[in-house]
Parts: sequence; C-alpha cells; structure tokens
Amino acid sequence: MKTLLSARTWLPSWIAGYDRGKAAQDAVAGIVVTILLVPQSLAYAMLAGLPAHVGMYASLLPLLAYAVLGSSMTLSVGPVAVASLMTAAAVTPLAVAGSADYVLLSMLLALIGGVVLLLLGVLRMGFVANLLSHPVISGFVTGSAVLIAIGQLKPLLGVPAKGDTALELLVSLVSHAGQLHLPTAILGVSSAAALWASRRFLAQGLRSMGLGAKTADIVPKLAPMVVVLVAIAAVAAFALDTGAGIAVVGVIPAGLPRLAVTMPTMPQLQALAVPAVMIALIGFVESVSVAQSLAIKRGERINPDAELRGLGAANLASALSGGFPVTGGFARSGVNFAAGARSPLAGVVAAALMALVLLGLTGLFERLPLAVLAATIIVAVVGLIDIATLRHAWHYDRADAVAWLVTAIGVLGLGVEAGVGLGVAMSIGTFLWRASRPHMAVVGRVGESEHFRNERRFSVRTYPGLLLLRVDESLFFANIPAVVRRIEEEIARLGDVRHLVLDLSSVGHIDLTAVEALQRLHSDLRERGIQMHLAEVRGPVMDRLKHTSLPGQLVNKPFLSLHEAIGLLAGEGSTPRLSVLPAVADGPDHSNRPKA
Amino acid sequence: MKTLLSARTWLPSWIAGYDRGKAAQDAVAGIVVTILLVPQSLAYAMLAGLPAHVGMYASLLPLLAYAVLGSSMTLSVGPVAVASLMTAAAVTPLAVAGSADYVLLSMLLALIGGVVLLLLGVLRMGFVANLLSHPVISGFVTGSAVLIAIGQLKPLLGVPAKGDTALELLVSLVSHAGQLHLPTAILGVSSAAALWASRRFLAQGLRSMGLGAKTADIVPKLAPMVVVLVAIAAVAAFALDTGAGIAVVGVIPAGLPRLAVTMPTMPQLQALAVPAVMIALIGFVESVSVAQSLAIKRGERINPDAELRGLGAANLASALSGGFPVTGGFARSGVNFAAGARSPLAGVVAAALMALVLLGLTGLFERLPLAVLAATIIVAVVGLIDIATLRHAWHYDRADAVAWLVTAIGVLGLGVEAGVGLGVAMSIGTFLWRASRPHMAVVGRVGESEHFRNERRFSVRTYPGLLLLRVDESLFFANIPAVVRRIEEEIARLGDVRHLVLDLSSVGHIDLTAVEALQRLHSDLRERGIQMHLAEVRGPVMDRLKHTSLPGQLVNKPFLSLHEAIGLLAGEGSTPRLSVLPAVADGPDHSNRPKA
Repeated sequence: MKTLLSARTWLPSWIAGYDRGKAAQDAVAGIVVTILLVPQSLAYAMLAGLPAHVGMYASLLPLLAYAVLGSSMTLSVGPVAVASLMTAAAVTPLAVAGSADYVLLSMLLALIGGVVLLLLGVLRMGFVANLLSHPVISGFVTGSAVLIAIGQLKPLLGVPAKGDTALELLVSLVSHAGQLHLPTAILGVSSAAALWASRRFLAQGLRSMGLGAKTADIVPKLAPMVVVLVAIAAVAAFALDTGAGIAVVGVIPAGLPRLAVTMPTMPQLQALAVPAVMIALIGFVESVSVAQSLAIKRGERINPDAELRGLGAANLASALSGGFPVTGGFARSGVNFAAGARSPLAGVVAAALMALVLLGLTGLFERLPLAVLAATIIVAVVGLIDIATLRHAWHYDRADAVAWLVTAIGVLGLGVEAGVGLGVAMSIGTFLWRASRPHMAVVGRVGESEHFRNERRFSVRTYPGLLLLRVDESLFFANIPAVVRRIEEEIARLGDVRHLVLDLSSVGHIDLTAVEALQRLHSDLRERGIQMHLAEVRGPVMDRLKHTSLPGQLVNKPFLSLHEAIGLLAGEGSTPRLSVLPAVADGPDHSNRPKA
Repeated sequence: MKTLLSARTWLPSWIAGYDRGKAAQDAVAGIVVTILLVPQSLAYAMLAGLPAHVGMYASLLPLLAYAVLGSSMTLSVGPVAVASLMTAAAVTPLAVAGSADYVLLSMLLALIGGVVLLLLGVLRMGFVANLLSHPVISGFVTGSAVLIAIGQLKPLLGVPAKGDTALELLVSLVSHAGQLHLPTAILGVSSAAALWASRRFLAQGLRSMGLGAKTADIVPKLAPMVVVLVAIAAVAAFALDTGAGIAVVGVIPAGLPRLAVTMPTMPQLQALAVPAVMIALIGFVESVSVAQSLAIKRGERINPDAELRGLGAANLASALSGGFPVTGGFARSGVNFAAGARSPLAGVVAAALMALVLLGLTGLFERLPLAVLAATIIVAVVGLIDIATLRHAWHYDRADAVAWLVTAIGVLGLGVEAGVGLGVAMSIGTFLWRASRPHMAVVGRVGESEHFRNERRFSVRTYPGLLLLRVDESLFFANIPAVVRRIEEEIARLGDVRHLVLDLSSVGHIDLTAVEALQRLHSDLRERGIQMHLAEVRGPVMDRLKHTSLPGQLVNKPFLSLHEAIGLLAGEGSTPRLSVLPAVADGPDHSNRPKA
C-alpha cells in the first residue's frame, strides 16, 4: 500500500484526471506547436551559430524529458532566442562557428547546465529564481532582443558584418552597407514585412471574417511556417540559391539523433562552467515566469523545484541527443496554451511529429533561405521588447527604472554575459541602497486613540521631553549608522529630550552589528541623561534580543505598545522616571547600577 | 564677515577651544606614541616586504596630512598590520621583495588608494564604510591576524619557509623545521615571551606597586621599545649578527625622505587598481571603527566624510614621501587616547620626533634583529584576534556567526584579497537570505483593545472568514514569492476565507516586482471569491502605490488600522461586503466593475 502510494507520488499528478477529451486537446496543441517549432528550431540553431539539424535535435528528446519531470501543463520546451544568443556568445571565442568543435562545446553547455539545474532541483533550491527582480529580467530580455534583432540584420540583408556588441554590429553593418546582397535583402525584408503584417492585422482580419477569437489568435502565429514554405517554393521554382546566390540552410542529415554523451575535459569545464550556469539559470528564471503567468490564468500551480528538475532533465536529454541549451519559450508556450494544451503530453505529440520531420522531411528545408529565418527571428524577438515595464517602473520607482536601463544598456554595450552580471548587481544593489536609507518617522498620538502616526503626515499629539521614533525597515549593518545619525538629529532638534522610545513595529530583524550599535547608543545616551526604551518589538526580534545584554540594560522592559510607553513615561501623576537615574560622569561601564 | 566665517569652517574645529593645557597633553601623547611608532614602523615595513626606512617614511608626513583634514582627535595614522599584509599580498606577485620595483609599486598602492579615498570624501560617500557588517570585519581582521602571526614565525624562528595561504605556510614551516636557526629562534621566542609577559602581568604589577591606573596601563604598551633596545644592545655586545648569524635590519639611510611623485604607467594602474582600492577601503573601515569607538568614550563625533579626506591625504603624503599604504591603527590609537591626546597635534608631535629619529638615530636600529620585530608583530596581532564577536554572534544569530567563520577561513585558506571578497559577499548574502524569508504572522485582536498580535504568541480573538496577516519585512523581488506562498497556505489552512487583510505596518518599501505580484494575487483571489485589503500602509509606501492601479482595484481603500478594517469587514449588523461582489467566471480584467 505504501509502495503504491509512493509510486503514485513519483508519477506526474496530472495523470490522475487525464481523459480522452484532454488527450484530443493535447494532440491538437502538439500539432499546432510543431508547425511553429520547426522553423524556430532551424532559426535558433542559426542564431546560436549551429547547423540546422542541431536545432531539430534540441526539439525532440527535451520535450519528453520535461513531460516526465516538469510541473507546467503548457510550457513548450526547446531552443529559445536568448539562450541561443548566450550560447553563441559563450562558444564563439572558443571555436569556429558551425565546426564540429563548436557543436561539441554547445552540447557541453547543455550538459553542464542540465546537471546544475537537476542538482539545484534535487536540493530544492527553486528560490534562486528570485535573485533577479522583474525590471532587471525585463531589461535583460529587452536588451537581448534588440541585440539579436541587430545581429540578424546581417543574414537578413546579406551584409558581411561582425561585432560582439550592438554598437560594433551597427557600425560594421553601416560600413559594409555597400556590400549588401540585393536578392537576399529583398527576400529578407519582404519576409519580415509579411510576418509583421500577419502578426499585426491577420487576427483582426480573421475575426472580422467570422472566425472564433481563439482560432483567429492562433492562426497568425503559424505564419512563420507559411512564409518558410512559400520561400522554399520560390527558391525551388526560380533556383534563387544557385542562380541568384541567396544563402540557404543546406544539407540537413536525415534521421533521428544518435544518442551519445561526451564528457567535458577539465579545460573545457573551466571555460564553459560559468556561461553554462548563467544560460541555465537565466533560462530557468525566464521559463518559470512564463510557466507561472500561464498557470495563473487557469488556476494551476507551478513548483519551482520541479521546474528545475524538468529543465535539468530536458537539457541533459538535449546534450544526450547532440542538441544545445533549451528552456521554456515565451511565444511557443503561449501558442501551446492558446491551442488548448492540457498536459505535457502536448509536448510529447510535438516531439513525435518532430521525429517524423527528421525521418522524412529534412530535404524539404534544405533550400530554405537564411534571410527568411532571420526575418522570423527578428519578428519574434521584437515581441520580447518590453518598454511597458520600464515606463511602469519610471512612474513607480526610479531605482527600478535605473536597474532596467543599466541592465538593457549593459547587454547592448558590454554583451550578454556582462549584462547578466550587471543585472544581478543592480537587483541586489538597488535593494541594499534602499534598505540603507530607511524611512523613519517621529510619531505622535492620533487624537485620544491608541494609534500613533507620523507627525509630518497626521495631526498628532506629542509629549514634551519624549521622542517617539519609528524605523520602517529591519536594522542591519548598512542602515544602522543612518538610523543612529537620525536619532541624534531628532534629539538635537527637539532639545530637551529625556526619553527616546524606539517603535520597532516595522523591524523584522536586527543583525549583530545593529544590536551592538543600539547598545552603544544606549550607553551614550545614558551618559547624557537620556533614557532609551523599546516598544512594539516583534516576537522573533525579541527572541533574539534575549540573547544579548540590551534588554537587561534598559531601565524598562520593552513596551508592548507606544500607548503603554506613554502611560508610564508621560502618565499623569507619575514622577518622571529620570529622577531615579544617577548622574553619570564618564566611562561606559555601569553594569552595577540598579535597574528601575 | 562671510569670508571670515567660511575661512573658519575650513580650519579644523578643534582649534577653537585649544589651550596650553591641551597642548601639554598632546605633547606627552606624541612622545608616548613615538616610542611605540618607531618599532612598529620598522616591523610593519618588514611585514610588507619593504626596507625598514620605508616604514619610517610612512610615519611622518601622513600624520601631518591627517592632522589637517581628519576628524578624530585620537586616531594615530601610519603603517598598520593588516594593510601591510595586504600590500605584501598585492606586490609580491609583481616584483622581488625589497627591490626598487617593489618599493615603487607599494608607493603606487598608497598613491592610488589616496586618490580614491580623497575622491570619495569630496563626493561625501562615507557611507561605503557601512558595506561590511561587524562580524565580517571581525572575521577578516582575525583571519588576517592569524595569517600574519603564522607568517612571522619564519623570521621569528629563522626557518626558511614560504607559501601564500596559512596552510601552505604551516606545511612549509613544519617541513623546513630542521633548518631552524637556533640563535634566532632563542632570541625571537624569548622576545615574544617578554612582550607577552609585560602585556599580561606588567599593568597589574605596576598598579600593585602604587602607580596610577592610567600610567600602569600605558607603560606595558611601550614594552616593544624596551625589548628592541635590549636586543640591539645584546647584538652589539655579543656581535650576534656577524658572529651568530642572526639576521638584522641592516643599513637604514639617514635623513628625511625626498619628496617626489612617480605616476603609475597604464599596466601598473591596471595591476594595482583593485588591490589599492581594497587596501584603502578596508583601512578606512577599520580606521573609522577605531576612531568611532574612541570618540564615543569622550562624547566626540567622527565625520566619515572627513575621515575619507583625512586618510586620503595621509596616503597621498605617504606616497609623496616614498612610503606605503597607511591608515589609523588600533593599538597605537588606543595608546594615543590613553596617553591623553586632545587633538591631531599629538600626531604632529610624533611626526616631528620621527623626523629627529630619521635625522640622527637610524644607525641605532641597524643592528636590530628581525626576529625581535617578528616578535613585536606577533604579540601585537594576537591582540587583534576577536573570538568574542564570533561567540556573541553564535548566540545571537547563526547567520552572522557563519559570515564571521567563512570570512576568517577565507582569509586563511584563500588569501587576504579573496577573503575580503568573500566577506563582502557574505555580508550582503546574509542580509538577502534573511530578507528573502520574512517573518509573517497571522494576527488577532488582543482582548477588546485596538491592538493586534501574532496568534501564536498571544491569546487573541480571530474572526471567521477573515484572515489578518502581517508581514515583517519590506516586500521585494527576493521575498514576494515566499509571501504569496504563505498567504496561499494560510488561506488553505483556514478554509472558508472571504477577506484577506494584509497588515503592512512593517513594510517600509514595496518594489515593482512585489507590487506586480500583489496585483496578480489580488485578481487571482478575486476569481476565487476572496477580497484582498490593505491596512496600516506606511506613508511613503502609499505615496508610491498611488502610481499603480492597485489601490483602485481594491474594493476598499487601504485601512488606517486593522481595528478599522475589522469594524467594516466583521462589524456587527453590517452585511458582509462579499455579497456585493459579482461572481466572476474567468479572465483577470474586471476593471469596469463598480467599486464599493
């Protein structure tokens, strides 16, 4: 019984309620996704600097592996634009594009990344997806999309240009503009225009022709396949490749990938470890956010740990079958979702169809012009450009907007790896910067209530000789000096302060550096005849403070509320507590003084 | 009048109240410090791998420069142990120890570091001192002290050993133990024992002999000079250098340093920039904490920006006079303080005395055994080892203790630069890790009061259908997924939840990623018939939220307090607000629904 149960927990949970209706929906979605996946697999292989068939190999086994271990019902795993760009950036300095070595190194990127993801998944470290803020991810993807689009202008126009950064590429494109290959440029630009128009107008047109909204939304997304087939037909009909010199995909070896694993040598491991981990983690972060946004629409749940395992297995499967790094794609997953996928079996259907293409239809794509692939890439990545988040951030919080801009400009100006590094640094830096300048408020009583609010925002009652100060952030090494400085400023401003009450209601944690600073502040103030008190200390904070001498040094126990503190410190009839304080001349050590 | 005033603000503020009494105290302190400074300057030059006179050069002009621009009354600037260790670590891979090139590169470290500090000071960026937590600084200094002590066993015992890390050094020392130079070892160990004994017992002995506590505290600290003079006398009397082969300091060029600046070449700048900045910043952080702890004892204030300028000028002065990186020293400043220094003029006195030593007494120190210098270094750095902070951290917060340990072990195992990097990463990592697992509490009403507390810690009243949840941390990209997950768990646990009220009293900031997540949560909950409400939103948080659509999407305006929220949502006689909510079938867009 127990064995049965545990076997059951190892099976994907969606199997329980699976039925014939869902199977039919998955089959339809699988067919639709394949129509998008075939041109994408060819295009992203080209973007990564790899032979076309590598893209197809990466679109087969990974889908099966993800189906077993992943947690999303709709994520479509395979080659994607950003991971392909990062693969090219990582491998280009190490090998000649398209060479056997280049293919091997790309495969190793998937292998290393897959092992790392699988390991993180087993260790349940899905939270690493939270190390990048949304503005940074958005800035990174936008910068990458622009960089990809600029890079694809080269095959699109048939201009021989090169460069690592967006600026170098643009300069090179302009300076080589004279060498533009006119037939290629005409084909490329018209393909891009057709794709753009279908994206822009087709859905509306189809809807006005009476098609259902869902179908009208899906059909335009299949335009790449139509453009690809038309282009192939045109090349074949007019011999544009041999006659007009338009570059085409060329021979694609037919048949399924051979399964083999080549282990990296130590130097390869050293050269590839960092980019492999970056590609894997960036892919994971992107993929989880796509999966999550689709799951929310249907009330499904994503398990980040399962996603790590699913994507790890998918990358190992890709490496095993001679592919390159894969992850969940944004556009393709959207199509899968819209086409009605109910389970990862939709991906299995797509994989089966891809196998059929590899077995019998590779010949069809050999005369596919590279300019058309470039057009599909450009139109696809333009959809990733996300200025809305920048605008939103600009209005909400400039620091987030700056993080977006720095990351995007970093990707464009310094390259994709430096961009990621800059993005992580900006994410963390923004947070630290904010936390190191905490909001603080001098508070007073609202009317006769037990509520205390910022005296600058509310009409409140204050008490002579009493400074009530609230800190709206956890106290730690980076902000405690600013907090102490503000306390000193407020004491100087108020003049005759006898009691300082720190409202710690917003303080979720106090680190050791901050506790020590509070202890110093306390003995410093005591020498000047000012008593420090704590109020509204949160449970977990109090638990820790009990391990220090601070609570014992205070004249009063921390107050449950400011109301209680006022009652004692400014209460009618009660003598000011200060009178029991002996005048202290010098030296910080008064531990033998009796406590009130 | 105005010119006068502004001229006055450029003068150090201590000049105003300066009188003859303070001058006398400064003179005494200057003399006492010089007695400590002479052996220290020789010892730390040796530690840095530099000729002895470089240490003396670094103990002259820097004191004058700091006196003009610094803000501490008692800080004693000059060569210190940790900066000397870091200098050796930075320059050893680039030049042969003691060579002219080595001296030049060490000078450039001071030059570059000085420019950086001065620039940061002008830009008022004193807050960079807050980028390291106290446990990390303590772990770093402790690791460095142990590393220095192990390194000095080599000259102390006359064993030819080498190695970059503590482990390598120890292994090398043990494997070369057979080559120990017995006369050196006897001299070194007995010097160390004498220094240690004077440190351990002398103060007590002097006090029991009726000396004043202050004098009794200062005298033992001057023991290094006594040991140095005794050793010199012994070498001279028994010709221990030429006869017994004990290594001595050797020729020290007499006379004041020549002033000259050599600008770094581009390759030198590239090689030295990172270590120079590290040495400067670490020195600054140490120095500020020493200055601050001394200033607090006397009710004086330290201005971190002035400290940046003072230490920057001191390092430029050191470079100008052929010295190496300097900063405020821990032990020496303590002696300066205890000896009664009232202003930086104490440092000026020490500089003048050092000039006299350079002009006439260098010959005296030429027969000083290196083993004795090693003994003074070892006994000095042992005083820097700070296990108390580790113990304190261990009891207070394990994360701080782990940061201490990782930094200390990093310095010992990977070297001093990697140790610093690790320390910064640990400081920030610890904080992020904590912030990403925020404390959250389901709260309820305390009796009939307006106070709400954690239901797990207090006996509180809860309301059916109402989930009151308080988050004790600012909301940002790294913790919002955990917050949303906890909310979902609490909703699942309670069962029939109709209203979720988020108490944001502890939330000082919400970043864009978190706002977007709250918006998603809100529309997600709404589809399940649960209303989300906000309460106790801090002023600055509300100011930002107004730039988003979130407040408009909520059925109720954010409540001023939980009390107010309960009044409306669970009030007697009032119909549950839920009844006005239309059942919502699908799609997150309900922006046209009328607001309550």
